[in-house]
This record gives sequence, C-alpha cells and structure tokens, in this order.
Amino acid sequence: MSWKIQDNHMNQEQLLVNESLFALGNGYLGVRGNFEEGYTEDMTSIRGTYINAYHDETAMEYGEKLHGFPDTQQKLVNIIDSQTIYIYVDGERFTMFEGDILSYTRTLHLNKGYSEREIHWKSPSGKEVKFRFQRLVSFSRKELFAQKVTIEAVSETNEIVITSAVNGDISNFVDPSDPRVASGHAKRLRVVEAEAGETGPTVLNETYETKLRVCCASNSVINSGDYNYNVVENGSSIEEIFRFTPASSVSFTRFNIFTDTYRHGEDLKHAAWHVQNELKSSTFEDLITEQTDYLNAFWSKADIEIEGDDSLQQGIRFNLYQLLQSAGKDSVSNISAKGLSGEGYEGHYFWDTEIYMFPVFLMTQPEIAKQLLLHRFSLLDDAKSRAMEVGHRQGALFPWRTITGSECSGFFPAGTAQYHISADIAYSFVQYYLVTKDVSFLRDYGAEVLAETARLWIDTGHEKDGKFLIDDVTGPDEYTCIVNNNFYTNVMAKNNLKWAVKSLELIKEADQQAFEKLAGKLNVSEAEIREWEQAAEKMYLPYDESLGIHAQDDTFLNKQVWNLEQTPAEKFPLLLHYHPLTLYRYQVCKQADTVLAHFLLEDEADLETIRRSYNYYEKVTTHDSSLSYCVFSIMAAKLGYDDKAYNYFIETARLDLDNTHKNTKDGLHMANMGGTWLALVYGFAGLRVKEDSLLFNPRLPLQWDKLKFTIQYMGRTLQVGLHKGKTVYTLNEGKELVISHKGEKVTVSKEAPVELNS
Amino acid sequence: MSWKIQDNHMNQEQLLVNESLFALGNGYLGVRGNFEEGYTEDMTSIRGTYINAYHDETAMEYGEKLHGFPDTQQKLVNIIDSQTIYIYVDGERFTMFEGDILSYTRTLHLNKGYSEREIHWKSPSGKEVKFRFQRLVSFSRKELFAQKVTIEAVSETNEIVITSAVNGDISNFVDPSDPRVASGHAKRLRVVEAEAGETGPTVLNETYETKLRVCCASNSVINSGDYNYNVVENGSSIEEIFRFTPASSVSFTRFNIFTDTYRHGEDLKHAAWHVQNELKSSTFEDLITEQTDYLNAFWSKADIEIEGDDSLQQGIRFNLYQLLQSAGKDSVSNISAKGLSGEGYEGHYFWDTEIYMFPVFLMTQPEIAKQLLLHRFSLLDDAKSRAMEVGHRQGALFPWRTITGSECSGFFPAGTAQYHISADIAYSFVQYYLVTKDVSFLRDYGAEVLAETARLWIDTGHEKDGKFLIDDVTGPDEYTCIVNNNFYTNVMAKNNLKWAVKSLELIKEADQQAFEKLAGKLNVSEAEIREWEQAAEKMYLPYDESLGIHAQDDTFLNKQVWNLEQTPAEKFPLLLHYHPLTLYRYQVCKQADTVLAHFLLEDEADLETIRRSYNYYEKVTTHDSSLSYCVFSIMAAKLGYDDKAYNYFIETARLDLDNTHKNTKDGLHMANMGGTWLALVYGFAGLRVKEDSLLFNPRLPLQWDKLKFTIQYMGRTLQVGLHKGKTVYTLNEGKELVISHKGEKVTVSKEAPVELNS
Repeated sequence: MSWKIQDNHMNQEQLLVNESLFALGNGYLGVRGNFEEGYTEDMTSIRGTYINAYHDETAMEYGEKLHGFPDTQQKLVNIIDSQTIYIYVDGERFTMFEGDILSYTRTLHLNKGYSEREIHWKSPSGKEVKFRFQRLVSFSRKELFAQKVTIEAVSETNEIVITSAVNGDISNFVDPSDPRVASGHAKRLRVVEAEAGETGPTVLNETYETKLRVCCASNSVINSGDYNYNVVENGSSIEEIFRFTPASSVSFTRFNIFTDTYRHGEDLKHAAWHVQNELKSSTFEDLITEQTDYLNAFWSKADIEIEGDDSLQQGIRFNLYQLLQSAGKDSVSNISAKGLSGEGYEGHYFWDTEIYMFPVFLMTQPEIAKQLLLHRFSLLDDAKSRAMEVGHRQGALFPWRTITGSECSGFFPAGTAQYHISADIAYSFVQYYLVTKDVSFLRDYGAEVLAETARLWIDTGHEKDGKFLIDDVTGPDEYTCIVNNNFYTNVMAKNNLKWAVKSLELIKEADQQAFEKLAGKLNVSEAEIREWEQAAEKMYLPYDESLGIHAQDDTFLNKQVWNLEQTPAEKFPLLLHYHPLTLYRYQVCKQADTVLAHFLLEDEADLETIRRSYNYYEKVTTHDSSLSYCVFSIMAAKLGYDDKAYNYFIETARLDLDNTHKNTKDGLHMANMGGTWLALVYGFAGLRVKEDSLLFNPRLPLQWDKLKFTIQYMGRTLQVGLHKGKTVYTLNEGKELVISHKGEKVTVSKEAPVELNS
Repeated sequence: MSWKIQDNHMNQEQLLVNESLFALGNGYLGVRGNFEEGYTEDMTSIRGTYINAYHDETAMEYGEKLHGFPDTQQKLVNIIDSQTIYIYVDGERFTMFEGDILSYTRTLHLNKGYSEREIHWKSPSGKEVKFRFQRLVSFSRKELFAQKVTIEAVSETNEIVITSAVNGDISNFVDPSDPRVASGHAKRLRVVEAEAGETGPTVLNETYETKLRVCCASNSVINSGDYNYNVVENGSSIEEIFRFTPASSVSFTRFNIFTDTYRHGEDLKHAAWHVQNELKSSTFEDLITEQTDYLNAFWSKADIEIEGDDSLQQGIRFNLYQLLQSAGKDSVSNISAKGLSGEGYEGHYFWDTEIYMFPVFLMTQPEIAKQLLLHRFSLLDDAKSRAMEVGHRQGALFPWRTITGSECSGFFPAGTAQYHISADIAYSFVQYYLVTKDVSFLRDYGAEVLAETARLWIDTGHEKDGKFLIDDVTGPDEYTCIVNNNFYTNVMAKNNLKWAVKSLELIKEADQQAFEKLAGKLNVSEAEIREWEQAAEKMYLPYDESLGIHAQDDTFLNKQVWNLEQTPAEKFPLLLHYHPLTLYRYQVCKQADTVLAHFLLEDEADLETIRRSYNYYEKVTTHDSSLSYCVFSIMAAKLGYDDKAYNYFIETARLDLDNTHKNTKDGLHMANMGGTWLALVYGFAGLRVKEDSLLFNPRLPLQWDKLKFTIQYMGRTLQVGLHKGKTVYTLNEGKELVISHKGEKVTVSKEAPVELNS
C-alpha cells in the first residue's frame, strides 16, 4: 500500500488533480497523467508533455513599463503529444465516460516507476472488455516515454481497432476565465515535419521565438494477433491504425522518444531514432525491471519509513518520488516550481530549489545536488548582466524566476525585489561544501558565486553609524514588499559575505597557487575581502527590545496587526482578495520569513529569541504560500511544540495528494514536497549540518512508532532510526564518524549501530 | 511682442514641438497646430484633434496581475480630423517643404485667441504665391474650430484648387520605437456615417468600447471669386473640391463644429447643425472679435505683467493662455496633464489639477475653479467604490490617474499608492472655501469630500504609542515608493482630517438644520468626528533631530545619498536609466516632496525647519519631474534665496516654449504652467491665503522693474504691483479689505491704492 498511489475517482475536478498526481517524469521529460483514449467533448483536461527548460519567449506587457522591467517572459512549452491511443471495440469507441465502468483502479508504483489503469468496461451496447494501460517515463533513458495497452475481450468481439496518434499541433493550456493565462500566448510551437516513415511516426516541431526544436519519434510494437495496418497523416499529426479481426485480446506497446535542441544538438530525428534502435529488443516488462533497479538504488538512499501512519508514509514517499521525477539532472535544467507535472509558474525556477528541494538531494543524492548547483553556476553571467541592468556597479543579481537566466518576473515588488534569492543560491553552495567538504568544487564554482553575490550586497547595502544596512528589498514574505533591513535578507547576506571570505580562505589553505589564480580571475583584492568581512560583521539585524524578537524589517512591527480571526474563510488566500498595498500595510505574513531565517541560520539568534519570534510570527502568518508549513513544523519541533510540529507536518505531507491548496491541477507543489522531507529530517530528527559535524536532536512524534531515514555525509551513508524512547544510528558506508546526539558526542562506525536514549 | 508667440523654424523636431505650442483649445475642444496642407511623406506629425474626456477603454496588461489592479485603461481619443486643406496652384500642390519659402511667420495671438501662418512661397516651377492660414477654437462657442485661408497669387496663375477634407479614419499616435505606445491601441474609433449632404460634410464616429460618439459638421464659405465645386466621399472621409479658374486671389473660410455624446446627447448631427446655423452670418473676423472680447475679460482678471524681461513676460502669458485653453469648464471634464495639446498621459487627470493648476483659476477665475471641484465631486462615488475594491472598510480613495473616475494607473507603486491625491483634492476644497468663504458650497459638496477622504485616512492609518501612523503609501516623490509615514502624505492627511471636522462645524454654525440633514446623509456621528479630530491631533510627522528637518518618510534619511555630481548628464532623467528599486534605495528625489508640504502647509513647521529642509532636500532633488522647479522657486523666495528663486522660476516659465524637457511634442506640461503662476504669486509676491486674511511678503526679483497681477478674493478684485522698493495694492472691485503686508495689517479700499515700502 505505501508504495502505491491509487485512485478511482471519476469526477471532473479530481480527474484534473490526478493528471498532476499521476504525472510521470525523469527530470528531463514529463508527461501528465492524461487518459490515452481521451475524454468527452464537454470535459476539461490539461493534456501535457514537457521537456525541462524547453521554452518559448513571449512579450511581457505592462500598464506602465519602467527601466529594467523584463521585455520578455519565458514559458515552458507543451510539446508534441504522444499519449493518444483510441480503442474501438466492434465500432464502439472506448471512453471512461460512456457505457459502464464495472471496475476501475489507477495505480502509481512508487517503487517501480510506472503507472497503470485497470478497467472493466461495459460498452453502451453491452459488450464487456478489460483494459490495462501502463506507462512509464524512463529514468535510465531520459528520452523515453513508453506505453502499453492490454485489451481482453470478455464478451465476444469481432474487431478491435487501435488508433495511435502523435500530434504536433499543440497549444499550452488556456483558461479564458483566468486573466493570468493570456490566450495569445497559448500556441508557441509550429510543426516542421510530421511523417510516418520506415522508422515510425516522427514529428519535429519548433518554437516561434526561441527557435528551439523538439522531436518525437514513436514506434509501436504489437505483441499479439494478426492485424491490418494503415496510417493517416495530415501535416501536423500522424495516426497509425491497427485493425485486429477477429480479436479477443490485444497487447500493444509504444515507445515514444523525445529529443530536443538543448540536449541533442542539430539532428534531433537521428538522435531519436538512435534511442529507438537501442530499444529494439526491449519489452515494456524489461523497462519496468530497469525502472525498478533504478528506484531500488534511489530508495536505498532516500527512503523514509514512518511506522504508525500509513497515509503519511504514503505522503512522504510520493513527495520524494515526485522530487526525483522533477529534478533536472543536466547542465541546462533545474527544478521548476511545479516540476514537470503542469504549466503553473511557466516552468520557472525559483529559490524553491535552493531552500526547499536542494537539501533533499544534497543529503540523499549528492550528484543530483551538484548538477543543480552547476546549473545555477551556468546562469552567473546573466546574473551579473542583470545587476548592471538594474543599476548596480558590480555583483550578480540572480533573477527571481527564470529558465535560462533572464528575469521573468513581471511584478518586481514580489519578484526582482526578492534579492534574497542571490543569498539563497550562495547558501546552497555553502551547504554543499558543509556536507561534502569538497574544496575543489568551491574553487571551481562556489567561490565565484559567493564572491559575485557578496559584491551585490556591498553595492546594495551601505554603512551608517557602524551598521551595514540593506534598503528596499523584499523578503520571502510577499505580503510585505519593498522594505528596509528585512531580517531574513540581511542575515542571509551576512552569511553570504562571511562565506565569500571563508571560501577563499579555505581554497588558499588547500592550495596557495589555485587561490592566486582564482583571485586573479575574480579580480579580488585583499582589501575587497576585508570589505566583505566588515560588511558581514556590521550587518544590521533588526531587533525589537520590547518584544525580544527580530523584527521582520525596520517597520514591520509598527504596523497594524491584521485581524485573522475576523477574516472570513472565503477571503483566503488574502492575495486574491486584497490589493497588495492593503496587505503591505498590516502585520500579516503569507509565509515564514523571520522564522525561516531562524531555521537556516540558527546560530544568529539565541533560543529564547527564536522561541519568541516563532510565537509572535505564527500569530500573523496565513500560510497562504505552500512554502510555509514545513518551516513552522521544523521550528515547532526545535522548540518542543510537538503538536504544532506534527500538525504542520501533516499539512505538508499530503498537500497535493489531498489537493488542500485547491490548485494541484496546475501542477504539484514541489517546494512543499521538499519541505516534507525537511520537516522529518531537520524537524523531528533535529538534524543540523555544522562546520565541524552533524547534530541530531531527535523527537519522534508521539503518534508514531518509528521514523527511519538515510543521509549521505562526506562519503558516508548514515541511517537514523527514531524509535519510542531511543534513537539508532547505523553507519552503512564510510569511515567512522563523530556526530552529536542531543549535545553529546557519539562515534558511529560500521562495526555496529549505536543505540541511544532519546 | 509679449502677446505673441512667433516661430519660423522648419526642422522636424521643432515642427512637432510647435504642434503642441500652437495648439488651440477651449477646455472642450483642442486642435494641435498641424499644417492644413500636410507634410511630405518622410515627415512625422502628430495630427490631432481632441475633446476633453472623450475617450475609449483598452485592456490593461500585466506581467503578473494582482487583486485590485485595474482591468482597463482610459485613453483620450484622437477624433475626426477637419484640419486638412490642400491647395494646388496651377497643378502644383503647396507644401512648406517643396519649392522655396521666401518668407514665413507663424503667430499665436494670446490676446486675440487665434493663430496664423503667413507664407510667401515660390513653387518648384517658380510661381510665387502668398498664403495666410488663420485658425481659432472659439471660447464662446465651444464646438467651433474655424479656419480661414487667404491666397494671393504674386505670379500669374490660371487655376487655384482647394481641397478641404473631413476625415473620420483616424488613429491615435503610435511610435513603434516607444514600447509605451502599444500599436494595438492606436485605432479606437469607427466611422458611423460620413456624408456630404445639404448641411455640408458631416462625419459621425464612435469609439470601439465606450461607444461614445463624436460628430464633426463642416461648412465652407467662399468669400471671393467664381468656382466650380465637387465632392468626393469614400465612406470614411469627405473631400470638397473648389476649383477657381481663373484665380489670382481666394479667400476660404471653414467652420467645423464638433459635438459629442457627453455634452450633446443622442442627436449629435442636429446639435452640430444647430451651431452651424447660428454661425450662418458670421465671418472669421467676427469670431476674432468675439475671441478678443472673451480674452479681454480673461486677461483683465488673469494677466501678469513683468517689466524687465520680455521673454519671461511672454512665458507667463503663454502659460496662462494655455491653462485657459486646457481647463474643462463643464461637469464631465477636468484638466489633463497635457491639456488638449497632445496625447501624452492619455488625457488623464492627476493631482496636477488640484496642486498646480486649480489655485490659478481659484485666484483669477473662481467659476472655472468651482467647475473643477464639481467635476471631482462627481467622481466621489467611484472613489468610494475604489476604496472598497482595494480592501478598505470605508472612505474614498481617488484614482491617481483617470478620466471618468476609474483608476487608470498600471504601476501602483507610483500610482494607486499615491494616496495623497485624496488629501490633495480635499485640500483644494478647503482652499476654495478659504478664498470664497462659501459655506453653502462646503455644505453641498466640500464637506462630503472631506468626510469621505477623512474616513479613508482613518482606515489607512492606525494609532500606535499615541501617534497616528500611515503605512505603505507613496508621496509625491516617485523615486521613493511605498514608504511609511511620508511627511507630505501625513501632513496633508492631518489637514484633511482637521478640515473634515471644521467644515462640519462651519456648516453647523451657519445652519443647524442643514448640518443635521448633512450628518444624516453622511451617517456621521459625533464620535466619528472626534475620531477624525484625534487622528489629526496625533498625526505623526517624522522629524530628524540631528538634521533638524522633517524626514521625507520613516527611513528616507537612513538611505545612501545618490551621488548626483558623479552621475553623467546622459543618465537623466534617472527613471529612464535605473530600475526603480535602485532609485528607491537612495536619497534621491524626482521632485519636491517635503519641500512641497512646507509650501502647502507652512504652519506645520517653523521657518528654520523649513529652511533646513529646503537646504537638505534641494541637494538630493533631480527635478526630473516638471512639477518640481516651481515649488523650489516659491520656497527659495520665502527663504530669501533670491537667485535660486529666480533661476528656478526661469526653468518653469519657458519649459515648453524652449522645450527644455525634450518632450513638448507629446503635449504641454500643464502643471508646470500653473507652477509659473504660483512661483510669481506665492513666490515673489509671497501670497498666502489664511483662514482670516491674505498675507503678502513681496520680494521683487532684482532683475525686474515691475511685477503686477490681479487676484480674486471673497468677491473682490485686488491688483498687486511689486515695484523696486515698493508694493502697490489696488482694490479694483469689492468691499474694503484688511490684508497683511510683511506681517503688518493694511486696509485696502477702492478709495485709493495703498503704496508700501517693500
């Protein structure tokens, strides 16, 4: 059960939600969980296939455009559709919405990496047929989306016809009732070629503006029976028609190979046919085996076991699985806010990666984590240009939302103004170092990112009365924009500056010559390094003496407190019901801001300040952002607020499975999915990665019997088990390690697990 | 000379500037100074005719749209063109850009209300002809745009042909290089009818969205010679062709009557023909006489004489004349930022009216001032709805820019966030009372505006530690947006609240019954009035102890000071070269903000604070806004900075005549034109209107021999003459009056002028 996601709902709303929940992907390719056989005319489906980073550009419109507002928007493009397989039984077309469904189960296998639908159908004329639709997007062969349909006639049938289509005439999803989805931007692809040659149907498309190409080469394999074949082409789509007469059971497999300009260069067709060729002798079952092997390896590092609550167990596994499906694993892609499960947020990459998802990979799949950093590193030059464009004299300003590096935010107060993203990216490079202690990565990539972002802070801030101040930025909380000395931003900038200095020291220590080369490349002087150090030391962190808490910004605590209790439920999320100015004018938070800073950099405040901050900010936070619950769960766990920690965790664990934010149809909330893991590991297990070691402060929720997970740390594989009354540390791989358990130093080696009271 | 604007430049840039400078209007109708005979193909002209408030709506686009962002934009529409008159002399078409111009003078007669072009032309084939083009937009008959062409052949000619056109196929101006002018929005009008019937050419048009109609009925009168007539219609335009054979001189007059839905109801054609009929026996010369009479009356109240500088004398007269041409004098219109001289700012009304232009009318043409207030009053219900939409629980939030009352600002940080416009409007109602002492107007209009805006402040602000705070608004300075406790906003809100209380007291004092009726209508209780009073008393006005100045806002003075000296000249105006966030992050002002507050409400700070504020803010102000110079001139005069007062005044007086802001082609800077008057009267003459009297603190610039002007005050006409060493007050009309001259009470009566040392 806990390795499966199952559903048999058939209502319109849940069907759309399921399209996201049952989406399959591998970080490169994503296919929504649409029905092969289609729907009825009056139904809505967001039929989508996406390649990570494959996008077009559209003009960005403004009522009034000021200097530095982006001219263009990048938009993930819904590509060629190869999902469609129509089935006719004695002339009656199968759909789930005509005739009777005698039984129906849909399953996503989290440990095997495929999904299936099993349907016992009675046609309108009374014929009974059983169908099994299976599909997978391969982790080992990123270009492959495979489908298998098994048809078994229960009643007597004379003819079964399968029409398998590849369609290049595709638009992005448009909702006329949603002004955010401009209909003029829906169609972003033109068909270059669509032919059913010897190699099978091949469709080649190109985006209108970016001129990026995508190819789908499809190949069908009939595993059973005699059939008659013909093909219909119309210039933009290809239909292969397989006619089985007589027929009682049919098994049909299709391999769809997707190649794109970014990964496959000029000749996309041959690249696709090449992969097709490699699959010549594979069956769908072979692919399941391949997927299972891949996932066994993944789960051996990433699985988290919860005993005592099956639905939460299912939630965490589902979330981890979707993270794996979404994460770009090459140098041109990252993790979109919705992964590859939908078109929400246009396939853009946000700080969500660095703060909510990167840590999961860092601690379980460091190679993927490294790829994510390398992708950000590849955007550094763009970030430097952007800083200049905005008016800075130096530094790198990373875009709030982007695919290939250009700022795609059309509302700067809650976009470009979120300067903290540059510090968040710097933070992730530091975290990578802390977990891997890889100085060569710092030397080759991290130090440059740290230096250029440090330069941004120097140019953004200024010293006054011995304090380093940062004016007119927006912190994570988007209900309070354009403020001075946002605590989160300042403390993250401080960390950024500090580590810009420290990374150079570490490199110098390791290799004087390499340091000098790097310093030359970065054109960094000793004086500049001292300037960073000084700015970090003098960084102003606003503190309210009377409340004993860090203020979210210079004036947040002077404002009126929003009366959340008196706000009717239908007025949430507030952003859909109040003008931003009204929200800005109150103490009301969309999400964790200061509380998040206390999590990421806990040594910057004492525990009682952190406690008072938590108590204060919790009262004014709406959690209208899906990035909020996990942070409150982690910090509640730290502070011993067990019920709160548990309840906030529940909100994260099944946010999409239960569609609690009501917009899962637009795609999964990837950052929240990362947050589930963070809440378990940083929250209940109390993990912190410090410069010299790992700390644990385990606190198993009362409701559970066990929480067990595995992390990677400096080449080691460490399993941590929280049980009632005890914690067990097991070193599965690597050299002996000293960790801290509830403040006490403990040595863990491969000899034997260490069992401690908790 | 000083009653004339003359020009004979022929280069492209100046031609466009002249189209604005020589624009004619009457507050209802405006016609740019385009050439009747047209231009050559390669030239740019912004050919425009406008009716105040006649607009269409277009969709407002956003990169990201949040709650309360306006869906639609209102846009002044370029209407039917009736300017065109082509002239052919023996087959050669006259233009200023072919053949030779032997002499050319263009004149705008500020005292006669018409413009003319006199041209001695030598055609490409060598024929010499003299032309005189005269035109006027009538002040007495608002629908009338009249033209007269006089042609005198110097060489022998056989045939003169005049083609007079009315064209309904019109678009707004589009500049493909300027992204602010979306080409999709250019065409806003469709032709309903275009026929040349017995009444002469009549074109009826309608806007696409607002379905407002406009009609132009044209009637031509030939004053001399025999001619052959025919007419060409093409469905959207009508050309009348007059062929004079033989001809040596021709005189041609055309009356174009414009009617619109707002002012003429359903039957625009008959309304236009009716006016046409009234003009049956009028000549162009009759109309000049009518104009001259009207302007004699105007100048008798409004003229300002400067002796000692003809170009400044010309500047102030030109500016006053353009104000008269631009001011809406009916209940549906106001004064656009560019008057009726161009399409800049889409014909919208801003705070420019209340703070920069209204005072000129109030003190010289109080009936026009009253109309302007009545127009704002008509938008009160919209302002109340807007407050609700934004999220307020009560009050009226006036739109930052609008035509008929809906917010048309597409960038809220420098738009909707400028809450001060509500206080500015309240201020103008108070000023009207102070100058007229008309309690009945307060009772019928002013008190309601004051009460509803007071309610806005109560709902926007809040009390903390005994101070009334107003968070997250933008003051006049658009280089610093979304701030807390903007001094300008707070002090204007204080005045607003105070006068909301006081206006009710005044009404109660005058008429208890009327007060009770009004209180019922407004649903205002004694407790609410006390709340307003308390808020005013407790209003927080940020003050920096160390600098001894009022801070522009809570944190302005903590920011870095922009290095204006090191900023290259080509980087101004800054807004075209830096992202708003970069500007917000510095102490740098687009325009007067705190300094303006010190002018409007000088009793809220002592003189030395005002002096220090001036000294401080002047150093960080770029005057990138044309609304800045006049304020600095006024305040420099107050503070005895004579050179500064004079130099800033010069910047205002000829800003458009000399095109110093380089964008006069898009229309005149109307607020600055009002500012010229303010600088003279509030600046050099030191006028202030207090509750109990008028104060003067005259200070004639050394460069001048005399400054003389006239003002209206409580039914009186007071002439004030500043001479070297003395000031002369002459009461031309009305009862004896006690004024204050340099702090000394002086009685002025019609008996004799009062001459005082200055």
